[in-house]
Order: sequence, then C-alpha cells, then structure tokens
Amino acid sequence: MTVPTKDITLELIRKAIKENERDYLLEILNELYPADIAEFMDDLNLEEAKFLYTLLEKEEAASVLMELEEDVRERFLDSFSTQEIAREFIYNLDSDDAADLISELTDGRREEVLSHIEDRQQAQHIADLLVYPSNSAGGLMAKEFIKVNVNWHVVTCIREMRKQAEEVEEVYSVYVVDDDDVLLGLLSLKKLLIASPRAKVSELYNDDVFSIKANQKGEEVASIMNKYDLVVLPVVDELGRLIGRITIDDVVDFIKEEAEKDYQMMSGMTQNIESGDKIWEITQGRLFWLIVALFGGIIGSRVVANYEEQIMLYPEMAFFMALIPAMAGNVGVQSSALIVKGLANNSLTGGILPKLWKEASVGLINGLVCSGILLVYSFFFTPTLALSMTVSVALMTVILFASIFGTFVPLVLDKLKIDPALATGPFITTSNDIIGLFIYFMIGRMMYGIFL
Amino acid sequence: MTVPTKDITLELIRKAIKENERDYLLEILNELYPADIAEFMDDLNLEEAKFLYTLLEKEEAASVLMELEEDVRERFLDSFSTQEIAREFIYNLDSDDAADLISELTDGRREEVLSHIEDRQQAQHIADLLVYPSNSAGGLMAKEFIKVNVNWHVVTCIREMRKQAEEVEEVYSVYVVDDDDVLLGLLSLKKLLIASPRAKVSELYNDDVFSIKANQKGEEVASIMNKYDLVVLPVVDELGRLIGRITIDDVVDFIKEEAEKDYQMMSGMTQNIESGDKIWEITQGRLFWLIVALFGGIIGSRVVANYEEQIMLYPEMAFFMALIPAMAGNVGVQSSALIVKGLANNSLTGGILPKLWKEASVGLINGLVCSGILLVYSFFFTPTLALSMTVSVALMTVILFASIFGTFVPLVLDKLKIDPALATGPFITTSNDIIGLFIYFMIGRMMYGIFL
Repeated sequence: MTVPTKDITLELIRKAIKENERDYLLEILNELYPADIAEFMDDLNLEEAKFLYTLLEKEEAASVLMELEEDVRERFLDSFSTQEIAREFIYNLDSDDAADLISELTDGRREEVLSHIEDRQQAQHIADLLVYPSNSAGGLMAKEFIKVNVNWHVVTCIREMRKQAEEVEEVYSVYVVDDDDVLLGLLSLKKLLIASPRAKVSELYNDDVFSIKANQKGEEVASIMNKYDLVVLPVVDELGRLIGRITIDDVVDFIKEEAEKDYQMMSGMTQNIESGDKIWEITQGRLFWLIVALFGGIIGSRVVANYEEQIMLYPEMAFFMALIPAMAGNVGVQSSALIVKGLANNSLTGGILPKLWKEASVGLINGLVCSGILLVYSFFFTPTLALSMTVSVALMTVILFASIFGTFVPLVLDKLKIDPALATGPFITTSNDIIGLFIYFMIGRMMYGIFL
Repeated sequence: MTVPTKDITLELIRKAIKENERDYLLEILNELYPADIAEFMDDLNLEEAKFLYTLLEKEEAASVLMELEEDVRERFLDSFSTQEIAREFIYNLDSDDAADLISELTDGRREEVLSHIEDRQQAQHIADLLVYPSNSAGGLMAKEFIKVNVNWHVVTCIREMRKQAEEVEEVYSVYVVDDDDVLLGLLSLKKLLIASPRAKVSELYNDDVFSIKANQKGEEVASIMNKYDLVVLPVVDELGRLIGRITIDDVVDFIKEEAEKDYQMMSGMTQNIESGDKIWEITQGRLFWLIVALFGGIIGSRVVANYEEQIMLYPEMAFFMALIPAMAGNVGVQSSALIVKGLANNSLTGGILPKLWKEASVGLINGLVCSGILLVYSFFFTPTLALSMTVSVALMTVILFASIFGTFVPLVLDKLKIDPALATGPFITTSNDIIGLFIYFMIGRMMYGIFL
C-alpha cells in the first residue's frame, strides 16, 4: 500500500483532479473499493466525478455506478449517450443491477439503451427482469446462476460449470434441474469437490430446497431468507422452472428499507427523505402530516371551545390541558409500536381480544402509577381538590383508553390491508389529543360538580 | 408430502401429543423445518415441548433449540442436566451457536457443561469464543472454516478440505494462510473446480480480502458487510492470524436489532419488549418514559399557571393551548428522526451550522404554510383578532424553534457519545411541549397588548 486508505480525503482528490495528477489519482483509486469511490463521487461535482470515472477500469466503473446515491447516478447517466450507457455500463453489470439501472431511465432512453446492448442474451435477460415490479421476487432476482442436469455425471457437471461460471460472479449454489428445467434441488460445491468424477448428480444432490415464485412479494422473500438463514434463494415460474436467484445482500437492503419505512412513518414523514436531500424535497415529505395534525389540533380547539364557560369559572383547569393529551399521545404510540413491530416480525399469535385485554392490564398499571404521582403532586400544589381529582382521574382514563385504542387501530388497519405503521405517526397522536381533551373536560365537569 | 405444511396447526400437534400418536407426529415433523418446529414449540407447554423434542433427530433437535425464543429456551434447558446439555445439544451445534447457548446459562452450570463436552477441540473452541463480548466480532464469529496453506498444490487442498469439510456445515470461502496462520487471501471454489490438480495455491488465490479484528464492534462488522456486500467475513487476531469467520445471517439479525433499537427509543420504551412478553415486563419497559413525560407535563402546568390571570381575562386563549405544543412535538420528532437516520447511515457530511441553517429553511416554509392556514381559520372562526394573531405567530415560532432544536439535540447527544435516538422519544416531545406553552403565552401577552 502506498497511500494509506484513511488518509484519502475529498480535498485531496479534488486538488489532484484540479491539477490533473492522473498517476496519483490512479494510485489512490487502486487503494479504494467501489463503495468507497462511490462515496467520494457522491460529493464531487459532475465534471470532477466524470474525470475520476474515466480513470477507472470498465468493470470497476460499473460497480461504482451501482453504489452511487440514486440522484447522483441519475445526473451522471444523463451526461452519457444511450450507446455509452449500453456499452460501458450495462455490459459490465449482472442482469439484476442492469435491470435496476435501466428502470431508473426515462421510457425513451430505456428502449434506446436496450437496443444498443450487443450481447442479445443479456438484453433478453434484462427485458425479462423489467417485467417484474421492483419489490417482487422477480424484481430482486438475477439471471446469472449455475445449473446442472440431474442426469449428468460429475465430470460433465464440472465441464459445463466451467462454461457457465464465466458469467457468474460468485458461485453460491449449483442448482439441479430436470430436462424441462424444473428445479429439483441443490448440489453442494463441497460434495462436488469430494465426489468421484463418475458419480451421477442424481446420487449426490439434495432435494430439500427452498424456492420462491417470481410474483411473490419482496417482504416474503426477506422473511423466508431471514427465518431459514438462507444466503441464496432460487426463483421459479408457475411451472416450477428455475428462472433466477436472489442473494441475501439484496435482501439485507430490503430488510433495512422496510425497517426505515416504519421509522419514517412513525416520525410523520410521507417520503423516504434524508437529511442530505434538497430543502424542497424535505419540506414536501414533512408537510402533509403537519397539515393533518394541524387540522386535528383545530378540531381539538373546538372541543375546548365547547367548555369555555367552565374555563372562565375555573381557569386553573387550563394548567393540565396540555399534559393530558400529551400523555395520551405517548401511551398510544407505545401501544401501537408494539403491535406494528409484532406484525412486522410475524410474532403475533391469537385473536384481537386477548391482546386488548393484555394492553388494558398494562394500561391499568401504568395509569395507576402515573395518576397516583399526579394525585399526590396536585393535592399539594394546586388550588382545589376538584382540580386534583379531575387531573388524576382524567389521566387514569386517558392512559387506559390510549392503550386500548393504540392496540386496536393498527390491528384494524392491518385487517383492512392498510399499513399498520400509520397508527404510530401523527394520525394516532392527533386523535389521542382530541379524545384526551374531551375526556379531560368531561371528567372535569363531573368532578367540579361533586367536589365544589 | 403426506401432510401439507399449511394444514399443520398447534391444535393438531397438541392433540397428537395428548393421544401419544408418535408416528403421526414424526410424519408432521418430517414436513417442517427447524424454524417452523421452534415456532410451534414456543407455544406449547414445557411437557408437550419436551415430548415433541424427544421425537427429533439429535442434529435437528439442536437446530430447533437455537431457533426458540430466548425465554422458552431458558426454561427448556433448565429441565435438562448439564451432562445432557453437553452431549445432546452442544455436540450438534457449531461453535458460535454453542457459545451463545452456554453464555445464556448461569455461571455454575456453564462450567459444568463445558467440562462434560467430550470433544476437547470443541470445548476449546467454545471457551475461546466465550472470551469475547457478544456484540463484538469475536462474539459473532464461528470457529468452523476451511483454510489451506499458500504453499499447497490443488490436489493437497482438496484432500485437506475433505477432512475439514466434515465439521463445516456450508463452504462459503476457502481461506489461504501462511505457515504462521496469517490470513493472506481467498481461494474461490470456482477457481478450485476449474484449476489443474498440480497448480499451486499461490498462483490461484486472491489477496484482496476484507478481514476484521476480533475486538471490533458488531456495528462495524454489520456496516462493513453491508457496505461491501459480503456474505462471509474472516476474523483475525492482533497478529493477523485467522481465528474465525462471521456469516451474513448473524449480521442480518444484528442490523435488524440495531434498527429496532432506534424504533424502540422513538416509541418511548426503555427495553426491547415485544407484545408477546409478560404484562409486568411490558409495563417495566414503558413506565420510565411515561413518568419522565409526566414530570415534563407538570413543569408545563407550572408554565401555564404563571399565566392564570391572562386565561381568566381571555379564556379563549385556552382553545389552542393543546395545538401549539402538539405541533412543536410533531416538527421536533421529524427533525430529530432525520438526523438520527443520517447518523445511523453515516450519511451526514459537513458541520452543525449548515444543517441548522437548512432545517431553519425547511421550518420556515412549513411554518409559513401551517400558520397561514391557522391564520385564515382563526380569523373567521375565533372571537378576537388578538387570538388569531397569537395563534398564528406562536405556531410559526414554535415550528421554527422545534426544527432547530430537534436538529441540534441529537447532534449534541452524538458528540457527547449519548445515543442520539434519545432525541426522538418522549424526552424531546416533552421539552417541546414546555417550550411551546411558554412561547404561546409570551406571544399571547404581546399580541393582546397590541390588538386589544
């Protein structure tokens, strides 16, 4: 190593590009992996990035391209002709990456790029993949894999595999198919290494193989691969014929995206925005739920307005007017998040009623503790016993209510095929606010009737 | 297939156990994978589970054990002697799973189990692994891997690999080491398949290999494997000697756990609780933040109490008293979540100031839109112009404030080495509530001074 990796900085690269120090840049690039190069390129301007790009070998360049941020890649590709995209990038990519890349292009450019691909088999592969929605098994799979016929001998296998291995980057599994290409099982490389050349595949292979249909959802792929600890999963068509394979690295991204979606929903954002995005994009992703919450708040203000007379008579009731809905919101989010997590992990068993019952018990304990504390505080530090009774009974009631409501809503949403994570966002918090205010004043009227 | 998998239900299994129908149960078990069997066993009682367990083959039984929920496994193991644990379970597990299992036992039982392991090499492997913290590279790695000496010929490799392959479940990579066991590179199985038997390893292997030190953190392992799309990562000691390997399936769980930690923090829970846990566990995990939020609410009530006179004079001010802090909470969570996500993905670049500036711009736009809507509404539907001006100016101010505060807090927490996700939970929402109330009444006093 001539340049220690950790000493390579964006400034260093910028300066070298400016001063056209090709040899030095080549030395730097040699020390970096595609994912690292892509990180630097994300932060360079288009001209700098293109200069750096021309220094890369074709194959590495294609890998770097796939690691760029989506918007950087888009701008970058716009500056190339469709012919260049086909010959320089697509040519050096696996079919799944190539299809992802092409699906990011505009319709017109997509067709042009496809027509410029010289390897017709690759074009065919990519066109096959473009048919599937990006988050289905078909959209996640690649067409490069190694398959052997069940009737072959080991020696034939190895000869055929040499040919096929050319186009397959990594050999994870060798698939065994019959004469109609129907997937029968797996042949482990270990067995192939150990077996006699004259042994037949039919004696060696393992017929206990997981597979997934091309139209199954990405969530199912992720859950099967995660549950059964699979590194690679073959994809079959409706007739059971082997058409592709999905590797775990594509599913790790999927699992992360799924987790991020729930997180995003809970934080009250409608799009997958990141802090690096443009101001306008960030605003767009956030405004919708803020406006929903605003209208919720306006409804809440109407509830309070209904009790204006009571506030005029007992202005001290206003002291706890923010505390009660806030606590309802906190409890509701806790309850909903537990259910959303359970649904995501497939770990929920039994019907709705036992879950509501359990949540009610938890709510009862939490409610007793919290309203107990509030009762003691308010007894000593607020002007009237009526207020003290109002706040503690109201807090108990809203905690119990929010626990049940927060459990019920995501379960119902899920039944209605709506994303249950909706229930952890501003929607449920705002509903809880409105109901919390209503409960507070209703109980207030009652308690002031009794204790005053 | 005699029993279609989807028809197998818990009731069916329970009934068959009760009626002692061993043959039928064996038929059922034959159709299921360890992860599925474990799911059923999680829901059976101890006696039923043990009965089912005795029907499994030893090797499958060990896999099932590792797939059980942690608390079920604990109860289950308690009912076996340390000798049985060593001979029946540990014997059939890979070293990493075996070490995980043993580390779940009490100190006394741990030593007893280790002493009962008959394969002294396995006991040695496990003892080596128990040294490392569970979320370090050493804690994640397994000791089973295949290694070849750089000076060997292909034919020697294959002979040695046959021996080693016995104890290795899946061959992902063949590691190349020198005479001192120092990791030099990787030998792809593809190359080994294709090469001539007389070729030397030194001519075939790839020296461009990622590795990680045993004391590096699980987070680092996950981020490297995810960034560079690795399926398996070798682990080395301080001298660069190969001591183990980590496979991606263990890291997928780690990535999921990390994502769940942020989610849990945001939902205001202190522990990794699930909806299936006991009522008392769930209550414990949730009560802490509720009490923190309660004290925040009490402080908020003191802020309001300070303005009691104003509420007596203008009770309509109470109408929007819940709306303002709620909006502050929503905006604050959005801002903090963006930063927390950015920190988790390592995608934040630049200093604190540009980020605050950007958030302020976003806050300005969102604030203008929301307070514009509220101004129009309150102008037509509330009694006084003073109130209308109060609510819209206060909303604008809290949105702007919460945007900046929500960005600032997680960045500062991160600098102080405190988990920045803290800022997305009840802590920040409660702070925003208090500050929101304060801003509301301050602006109210000002506006009522001007417009009345």
